[in-house]
Amino acid sequence: MNTIDQLDGIELTTEKEDLVCYSYDSSIAAPEIPRAVAWPRSTEQVVRLVKYASAHNISLIPRGAGTGMAGSSVPVATECIVVSFEKMRKMIEVDTKNMTVVVEPGILNATLQRELRVLGFFYPPDPASLNISTIGGNVATNAGGPRAVKYGVTRDYVMEIEAVTADGSVINAGGRTHKRAVGYDLRNLLVGSEGTLALSTRIRLRILPLPEDVITLLVIFKDLEAAGTAVTKILSSNVIPRTMELMDRLSIEAVENYKSTGLPHDAEALLLIELDGHSAAIQKEAESVVDMCSALGGEAIVAEDENARELLWEARRSISPALYHIKPSKINEDIVVPRDKIPAVLRDIRKLSEETGTRIISFGHAGDGNLHVNIMTDKNNPEEYRQGLSIVKKLFEITLGYRGSISGEHGIGITKAPYLDMEIKSREMELMRGIKKVFDPSGMLNPGKIFC
Amino acid sequence: MNTIDQLDGIELTTEKEDLVCYSYDSSIAAPEIPRAVAWPRSTEQVVRLVKYASAHNISLIPRGAGTGMAGSSVPVATECIVVSFEKMRKMIEVDTKNMTVVVEPGILNATLQRELRVLGFFYPPDPASLNISTIGGNVATNAGGPRAVKYGVTRDYVMEIEAVTADGSVINAGGRTHKRAVGYDLRNLLVGSEGTLALSTRIRLRILPLPEDVITLLVIFKDLEAAGTAVTKILSSNVIPRTMELMDRLSIEAVENYKSTGLPHDAEALLLIELDGHSAAIQKEAESVVDMCSALGGEAIVAEDENARELLWEARRSISPALYHIKPSKINEDIVVPRDKIPAVLRDIRKLSEETGTRIISFGHAGDGNLHVNIMTDKNNPEEYRQGLSIVKKLFEITLGYRGSISGEHGIGITKAPYLDMEIKSREMELMRGIKKVFDPSGMLNPGKIFC
Repeated sequence: MNTIDQLDGIELTTEKEDLVCYSYDSSIAAPEIPRAVAWPRSTEQVVRLVKYASAHNISLIPRGAGTGMAGSSVPVATECIVVSFEKMRKMIEVDTKNMTVVVEPGILNATLQRELRVLGFFYPPDPASLNISTIGGNVATNAGGPRAVKYGVTRDYVMEIEAVTADGSVINAGGRTHKRAVGYDLRNLLVGSEGTLALSTRIRLRILPLPEDVITLLVIFKDLEAAGTAVTKILSSNVIPRTMELMDRLSIEAVENYKSTGLPHDAEALLLIELDGHSAAIQKEAESVVDMCSALGGEAIVAEDENARELLWEARRSISPALYHIKPSKINEDIVVPRDKIPAVLRDIRKLSEETGTRIISFGHAGDGNLHVNIMTDKNNPEEYRQGLSIVKKLFEITLGYRGSISGEHGIGITKAPYLDMEIKSREMELMRGIKKVFDPSGMLNPGKIFC
Repeated sequence: MNTIDQLDGIELTTEKEDLVCYSYDSSIAAPEIPRAVAWPRSTEQVVRLVKYASAHNISLIPRGAGTGMAGSSVPVATECIVVSFEKMRKMIEVDTKNMTVVVEPGILNATLQRELRVLGFFYPPDPASLNISTIGGNVATNAGGPRAVKYGVTRDYVMEIEAVTADGSVINAGGRTHKRAVGYDLRNLLVGSEGTLALSTRIRLRILPLPEDVITLLVIFKDLEAAGTAVTKILSSNVIPRTMELMDRLSIEAVENYKSTGLPHDAEALLLIELDGHSAAIQKEAESVVDMCSALGGEAIVAEDENARELLWEARRSISPALYHIKPSKINEDIVVPRDKIPAVLRDIRKLSEETGTRIISFGHAGDGNLHVNIMTDKNNPEEYRQGLSIVKKLFEITLGYRGSISGEHGIGITKAPYLDMEIKSREMELMRGIKKVFDPSGMLNPGKIFC
């Protein structure tokens, strides 16, 4: 790295303190310290970084805000430069007529939401990290969020990506139109590729007008199976709530022990259901949701105003902090199953918890079968941690037994890479490796991710 | 092909009459006669066909119903076998709880719709060819249709594809869950790849519950610009109609000269708008659509019942037959532009028509900027036909000038392949060719398509 001054004009550090700060993310992945951190401010600077790295046989680790749950932005070797997109965070264009927006990858999801709200629009994907995570990171992992049940995931909103490939060329994947049938779908290939194929420098997103009204309901079930049945019943009755969040008994307990929000202690499951759309329509829909839940023994509480809504969401948002209160570390997986398998998979997880004597707390997006399963374990206790990792493998076996997937919205990164072949067959892996080689023959872009 | 009996048990013909029938599609592509046509009945038979073709250096041309508009299922050389999926047309599984269905590729779109309707569900993509086109073909070209403005295109409904790659292995791309972040997106790579990467043998689709109610409106405009403005105004007011079909003056004239359906002769543009959803909600939406159109000088007619609705759609459906009444052949392109550019592109097309003295009739899906542009020309008149082709190039230049795409829903096939590099830059083409090589190193799957 003695030639680093070749990167004239690109903000860069090689200070140990900085390097450490940019070496980790929110996962359990063990980091290596990079040689440098760079903060490009333009596509041209990204191109120069790529050309420099290529000429010097150094790898590049693209990084949004480091909120990833699977280690996608964690260096696995020292001969690398972390490319932070923190300083490429502009909203470049808003086109309300065509309902699209162009952003740089470093813009925070919440910043984008705030800018759009003023104009009467919103960007549907809402990962729990939205206040601190970047659109570039969201695109890299194909992030979801509670609203995905109605609105879909990041993939469904990305129209066009400008990106730099390993040879330093700037490509455009996708286009400006909502329909397009022109060659292979490079855009969807980049979404969810976790920075292993190219570095995104500009992203065009589809946006939607803000809904006229929102209704929030909390439904209390004495029976987990009934909560699961309610989810499938509501969706196939043609009511598509924007969120259907589930908390099981253990997560209710965790929240209430941490901070009493008034959740019922004897509930087996809670569903937090939110409807949005035209006032008259969702009023009618809410009535029908209450009826369907009642028929299954569910007791619904409707939030009467904004404050009441906030209170209902407080419990949901308290789960994560509550968990850190139980154990200093946790292994957070985000399995997904066909949605009617939610009750069955929750029962199996409870059994696994009992058999291994490990607390496992599950909550998440019941509407699309996506559960956050938290294996409570202390990383500093090697035996307990090993046990935690063996539970992960069993959890994935259960998930795949229901024809689910090992990741709904976090991606594979480093932490799930060893398990990838449990889900993806060898021929498909071969095709993915082939695609990686087409984009990045020397493997310089985010090595050690997805493939181990 | 003297060893063709190796394909024991696979239905197959080498009769000239059959071969001719399976050599063309709905495009202007000039066909070659294949060596044989095969009708596999299972994935295993497709695997055997692929292995046979590979061993004998013969290419395979996958074929749905031959309704393609760009020549994607037309042989470009004789050393090939057409693989017709006509006899793999079963609906294998319907899962109303998870709202998914698994079909073989040869099932007709309309057959699937009929089966689903009985159960209270529907499959949103509705290409105009739906009565005669197959799901496999729809997936191969990423077919759209009028409802795409609200519901999206084929890509948005494909969850999982079982397919056979050139080495004879059976792959699974995608999964059973609505959310998934597991490696590269092979599923979206197959959708729209026009049979050049793999042969699909089983497709899992997302389905939706039938809407409660539908309202159909015809809006008559004296000014084309106003019709275009109405489209963007309605959509950004948070009313998302399921269809927003546009007919310009020339297409109204064509229809009325062919078969009087009572359309106003002095209209500059018509919008056929359909709303679906809960009765109360769409009633309110319809009122607001009428108001917005009135403010722009548009006069709305609401269909009072099913018969009235049929009458309104009759005009729209009569366009295609009407065009064949004008000229024995036409060049049918399906450009797409950002939707607010529809009036501008229509004006440019009219100018192009006047300058070249060629009738060009445009209609289509204004809601998503996708226009069917029909260049009226007689294929048997070489000079006229050459002139038609030169107009195609100019049309694409106009389209790309508005940052549009040369294909919204038909694909590239043979007929658009010579123009592909007008839209796709050389580095992106190189990546696409690289991907093709990963899946099909010898180029045996549907050669001559997309890439020329």
